[in-house]
Amino acid sequence: MKQDRRKFIASTALLGTSLAAFAFPVLNAAGKKGIIHHVFFWLKNPSSQEDLKKLLSGLQTLKKIKSVRKLYIGVPASTEKRDVVDNSYHASELMFFDDLAGQQVYQDDPIHQKFIADCSHLWEKVIVYDAVDV
Amino acid sequence: MKQDRRKFIASTALLGTSLAAFAFPVLNAAGKKGIIHHVFFWLKNPSSQEDLKKLLSGLQTLKKIKSVRKLYIGVPASTEKRDVVDNSYHASELMFFDDLAGQQVYQDDPIHQKFIADCSHLWEKVIVYDAVDV
Repeated sequence: MKQDRRKFIASTALLGTSLAAFAFPVLNAAGKKGIIHHVFFWLKNPSSQEDLKKLLSGLQTLKKIKSVRKLYIGVPASTEKRDVVDNSYHASELMFFDDLAGQQVYQDDPIHQKFIADCSHLWEKVIVYDAVDV
Repeated sequence: MKQDRRKFIASTALLGTSLAAFAFPVLNAAGKKGIIHHVFFWLKNPSSQEDLKKLLSGLQTLKKIKSVRKLYIGVPASTEKRDVVDNSYHASELMFFDDLAGQQVYQDDPIHQKFIADCSHLWEKVIVYDAVDV
């Protein structure tokens, strides 16, 4: 009987945890809703491996900016080709910030400005999506 | 002298760690390069808070799919308006998978299929970006 009750409490606690994870927005360490910043780049010279390498190296420098919590640098994945999938871009940068202020600090940081000065001649198009967790 | 040496070893180890983080791609627990799947939705009825709520609730169900390592559900953030920023979408879903196989498992999962059956009438446009870590 006692064991059954223990089992019940353990199951209920587990259920509570998964419900909480399911029902509430993702909060960062400071208890704020995070900002997701995803940028897609299209190169001026799509066939230039050298230009791609330069751009990817430039993107790596952005890791040093303090308000950047996480940085993922990517290229198109070889997932199934579907009408809704846009795999025409050449490089992507996905960043997490604690909040809007962190995103603004990043925009103004000299490292970011240097990246734009050094690399913006490489791309012909950029699309940025900024999202906030719900 | 001994203390100086310890300090030197500690600093060198720290330097090694940050260089490693800087120079190598992000690998997941299985040592593979991860897949980032980002989907942006544009609603048929952009002014309907009810439709947005239905879509966001539908997206929450995708957390239950086992190959989904992380899921962030978002709406446009109120970052600075710039020409390159597309804030016209209404909801976004950002997922991480261990590998291409994990992404395919997700596509075929009945929970994902149910989400499409229940919610696809709500959106008029979807753009998907799949990236692999470099």
